[in-house]
Amino acid sequence: MLEKEQPSEEVLAARAYLSAVAEPPASALAGFVEAHGVCRASELVRRGDVPALVADEVEARREHVSGAEVLSAARFAGIRLVTPEHPEWPHERFAGLTDATAIGLPGMAAPLALWVRGSVPLAEALETSVSIVGARAATGYGERLAVEFGHGLASAGFTVVSGAAYGIDGAAHRGALATSRPTVAFLACGADIDYPAGHSRLLRAISEQGVVVSEYPPGASPRKHRFLVRNRLIAASGQGTVVVEAGARSGASNTANTADALGRPVMAVPGPVTSKASVGCHEMVRGAKALLVTGVGQILETLSPLGTIPFEEARVPGLETDSLDPHARQLYDALVPGEEVSADQLAQESGLPLRKIRALLPALELAGLAMRNEQGWSRCA
Amino acid sequence: MLEKEQPSEEVLAARAYLSAVAEPPASALAGFVEAHGVCRASELVRRGDVPALVADEVEARREHVSGAEVLSAARFAGIRLVTPEHPEWPHERFAGLTDATAIGLPGMAAPLALWVRGSVPLAEALETSVSIVGARAATGYGERLAVEFGHGLASAGFTVVSGAAYGIDGAAHRGALATSRPTVAFLACGADIDYPAGHSRLLRAISEQGVVVSEYPPGASPRKHRFLVRNRLIAASGQGTVVVEAGARSGASNTANTADALGRPVMAVPGPVTSKASVGCHEMVRGAKALLVTGVGQILETLSPLGTIPFEEARVPGLETDSLDPHARQLYDALVPGEEVSADQLAQESGLPLRKIRALLPALELAGLAMRNEQGWSRCA
Repeated sequence: MLEKEQPSEEVLAARAYLSAVAEPPASALAGFVEAHGVCRASELVRRGDVPALVADEVEARREHVSGAEVLSAARFAGIRLVTPEHPEWPHERFAGLTDATAIGLPGMAAPLALWVRGSVPLAEALETSVSIVGARAATGYGERLAVEFGHGLASAGFTVVSGAAYGIDGAAHRGALATSRPTVAFLACGADIDYPAGHSRLLRAISEQGVVVSEYPPGASPRKHRFLVRNRLIAASGQGTVVVEAGARSGASNTANTADALGRPVMAVPGPVTSKASVGCHEMVRGAKALLVTGVGQILETLSPLGTIPFEEARVPGLETDSLDPHARQLYDALVPGEEVSADQLAQESGLPLRKIRALLPALELAGLAMRNEQGWSRCA
Repeated sequence: MLEKEQPSEEVLAARAYLSAVAEPPASALAGFVEAHGVCRASELVRRGDVPALVADEVEARREHVSGAEVLSAARFAGIRLVTPEHPEWPHERFAGLTDATAIGLPGMAAPLALWVRGSVPLAEALETSVSIVGARAATGYGERLAVEFGHGLASAGFTVVSGAAYGIDGAAHRGALATSRPTVAFLACGADIDYPAGHSRLLRAISEQGVVVSEYPPGASPRKHRFLVRNRLIAASGQGTVVVEAGARSGASNTANTADALGRPVMAVPGPVTSKASVGCHEMVRGAKALLVTGVGQILETLSPLGTIPFEEARVPGLETDSLDPHARQLYDALVPGEEVSADQLAQESGLPLRKIRALLPALELAGLAMRNEQGWSRCA
């Protein structure tokens, strides 16, 4: 059924070329494509017939890459190209990225195309989604929570989006994979590359139940700046972003800042103040950049419009004596279990006027907190 | 020197009587004393010649207590009476309590007098002070932090105020006692009573280096409502209140609410979300009732007017590459240690225009991040 709506081979080749010719994020090129259309734009780029700003982005590679070649190499590697022309393109999620200046993040831009490993349609997977990110150097505490959150949020119908890195990312994906929901991993290298290598089996599992996605063409190697660029897609793909553990300087806080700039709720999980892995989370909360959350319930509450999901965690059953007003409480405290005391003695013990004592005792009796005996009153044990 | 300024024996006896005749907080009686003066007020109370609201507070005990007796019993127990007439009365700290309605807390009132075990002058001890409170059922994590904060804040010149209870309170006092600073414990029973019993040695140590204080006359037994009433004095006695650990329903949050109502900063320490003992702290932060703090530095920063004390914890030394702008970073990532690459290759690798590459390379060389060789450029390992 997707087949029917597939864009033409020509459009795919043009998108493949544009996605390979510039190093993302290519905001000038994106604008140029908007203005001239995909096929015309790629033709002009190949000819070098472009404005200076676009030239800066494409000059180095325009004569060295071929859309057709990239496309066939991708297909050979089992990677499909998803473009804004596809019905499964998540236009809504990426809307904020197209206007870089609006969100005050320089060099932001929506991806020109996405290379996808896995058959789940993107828009469908991201319709109800949450991003879970955090430190690679996570603690057992953090990984346990990431698995629990990934599983709990997926069970609640959310697609868990993350970066497939060691630590929090991988744990969140694993938790989600334990349900039947798809999970989405955005890579900072080609979707055909198992990075990190130790997660090759995890990446395969993700591509089978969900999708492994990259805006870099197959074969592109991971580079430090690509992780920061990739993070904007993770931030944009979730309705909100949860940071489970983050060090003092971390990619997770970079993702959180982008989510915040996109107007998506950012949540951070506290941890022991003695743990370096929680420093970033605590700083986000201190700086009012993130809402402190302690569990799946609070995350769902934050993600649900108008807090439609009630917040249970805080509710604790109260003892009946907790509902007593101060004077009744004062009187109750003056009563002794198994020892009968007169109203006069109770007045002196509690410091309350006899009048009040006489009015309050029946109420306490009704509440089952005091009982009348031969010699006076005593507390119900 | 204190001797010289001692109020007359008559005033002391009157205050002793007033402090024993009503169950604190006695806001009507406090107002009555303001209006008529201590000696006249106690005389009128003894005669029962008082307005209805005052009568409610004193009626039950007015004929049964004697100021002189309470006073001599206290002296026999080594407890001294400190009154608003003493130069050591901490007027400033209790100012907020005198106007109950102003702070929106019903039944609030400054104490009519304080019974003190220990010789350190109160006002002096409370001139620079911080309250540290928390759960009795604290964890090892919480107690360790309470000791550390108590010690760190006392070392910084603050008097640590708390309630001498098991758990956080006791740990905070112990940490402070390890310095030469006084520490102040407010009890919910007579200052002559070792409560909790297991803290008798701690209480003695506090009374020797600082003071054990109560608004209840010697012999008064601890009662549940008295702990809540006592908490207002802990909240009022510190420039700010730090909650180290607090359960879902806790006295610590009661103290925090009062401190907040008094306009004093409230701070809460996060902990593992898996710990029941941190639920209250996390809720306070979520509800914006407390500022999240992770260490002594942040507490000092919060307590110091205009944040005069700089905040260090967050500063982390950066790698020189972290200061690179995105393009320089992109170029740096394209360089390979020990492998010589031409500017053209670097342009294709990085996707940057040759022009930019030529401009950036010397800068990276100056920064000691890139080096020129026979065949081209390589990254400095």
